Amino acid sequence: MSGEAIRTISFAGAGNVAFNLAPALFKAGYEIRCIHGRNPENTGQLAAMVNAKPVFNVDEIDGETDLLILALPDQVIPGFSLSVKNAGRFSGIMVHTSGSQSLGAITQYHANGGVFYPLQSFTKVTRPDISGIPICIEGATAETEAVLMELAGKLSGDVRRVDTSQRALIHLAAVFASNFTNYMYSVADCLLSKTEVKPDILLPLIHETALRINGGDAATLQTGPAVRRDWSTIDMHLSMLRNNPEIREVYKTISELIVKLKETGGAC
Amino acid sequence: MSGEAIRTISFAGAGNVAFNLAPALFKAGYEIRCIHGRNPENTGQLAAMVNAKPVFNVDEIDGETDLLILALPDQVIPGFSLSVKNAGRFSGIMVHTSGSQSLGAITQYHANGGVFYPLQSFTKVTRPDISGIPICIEGATAETEAVLMELAGKLSGDVRRVDTSQRALIHLAAVFASNFTNYMYSVADCLLSKTEVKPDILLPLIHETALRINGGDAATLQTGPAVRRDWSTIDMHLSMLRNNPEIREVYKTISELIVKLKETGGAC
Repeated sequence: MSGEAIRTISFAGAGNVAFNLAPALFKAGYEIRCIHGRNPENTGQLAAMVNAKPVFNVDEIDGETDLLILALPDQVIPGFSLSVKNAGRFSGIMVHTSGSQSLGAITQYHANGGVFYPLQSFTKVTRPDISGIPICIEGATAETEAVLMELAGKLSGDVRRVDTSQRALIHLAAVFASNFTNYMYSVADCLLSKTEVKPDILLPLIHETALRINGGDAATLQTGPAVRRDWSTIDMHLSMLRNNPEIREVYKTISELIVKLKETGGAC
Repeated sequence: MSGEAIRTISFAGAGNVAFNLAPALFKAGYEIRCIHGRNPENTGQLAAMVNAKPVFNVDEIDGETDLLILALPDQVIPGFSLSVKNAGRFSGIMVHTSGSQSLGAITQYHANGGVFYPLQSFTKVTRPDISGIPICIEGATAETEAVLMELAGKLSGDVRRVDTSQRALIHLAAVFASNFTNYMYSVADCLLSKTEVKPDILLPLIHETALRINGGDAATLQTGPAVRRDWSTIDMHLSMLRNNPEIREVYKTISELIVKLKETGGAC
């Protein structure tokens, strides 16, 4: 198939991404044919959720499926694509869902390839509403790209054409904006766990910090001791962290960079 | 006054905290008598918003006000408290709004003292809804504390008795959860500003990361290359940051700490 709309979809992978994408596509009316996985429990569970067949060998993946989505760890994507080629049965569109892997990770073994990268942090237990999630699409041909953009448009109102190098930068930015941010939350949790103060005290602050950047750029909205150059508070905090040398170093480094942010107007 | 409910309030300071607290208290029905400030424009603007008198000398602060709120930078709080003592006119309750300053920063010069610390990041332009903000109260006496808790209860449904050492730890945790998080957003903004990708692409991810921690502890919800030990992505990101040595170092340090987080189950 090429240029025709996608009707049937299979997945390789039964991890966080597949656990969010497969049910969303199923709900949007697509037929999910197979879920290929290694872990029998996760694979079976996800397959049951979307009325698909759980399979454990590459040559069991339905060769007639219009689209095969590799929702796999980055490092196994090229190898899996090669296995599918070697199995010699699949001729549809093959995409991966990775921020950092190139389009070539698919197309080196499967010409009709693409990328379907939903910019969101998924876990099996948290199910964000996909309709507002940006989906970044890249296709080996304009035709494949059009078909993938149509599919993405069935899930989300925010579909963008993004090439491999832009996508890598978006993913890097997302590591700062989400993964490192979550790490900061975990430090805060940990500090409060040493007192009788419940960590829920921080939730309104965390929400406000995240929601207000809709209205402006983050550098302008920076608050706290470092941007105020409140050295006595900074010294007090460093002293409170004296038994946590690693966290103390993070505090010191980021505070210095925030001071600089104010001077230069930009973080990088 | 002691033990009687507060009816009239004055402020020292016309910065981010006063610009949020004074209008909220005014709206809650309190009479705002004076706004003391240094900057004529901010002081006049805030005073006009809450129907108060703008004043620029300590001895102009209405001595009959039930409560004087020092919404001032940490380092000037003790000095301002001393000035009020020297002016010799004010006998009501005096509080500061700082996370890091002790109760003693007030009570060393003014016995009837307290702390009124709203745990939120305020700017003059963002006005979070105060009703959901935790307010941490400390008072020199049980009576003062009760009066302050009653006042705080008029603004927020989340009022907590928090002593100086707990408050300092909450403030330190808040620096990680809010100020450092905002810094991570500014790095992400800055990285994207070098492409044609608009930074609003990150908003759904940022919101989801902040909102989902309602349901669990941050360490468990950690996602991204580091927690997956995806070294090839980490190496690629470090290489992309080769022209930003400081940001590269932040990436490296936090990634190493996230790997450790998984091993130890806690951030500190």
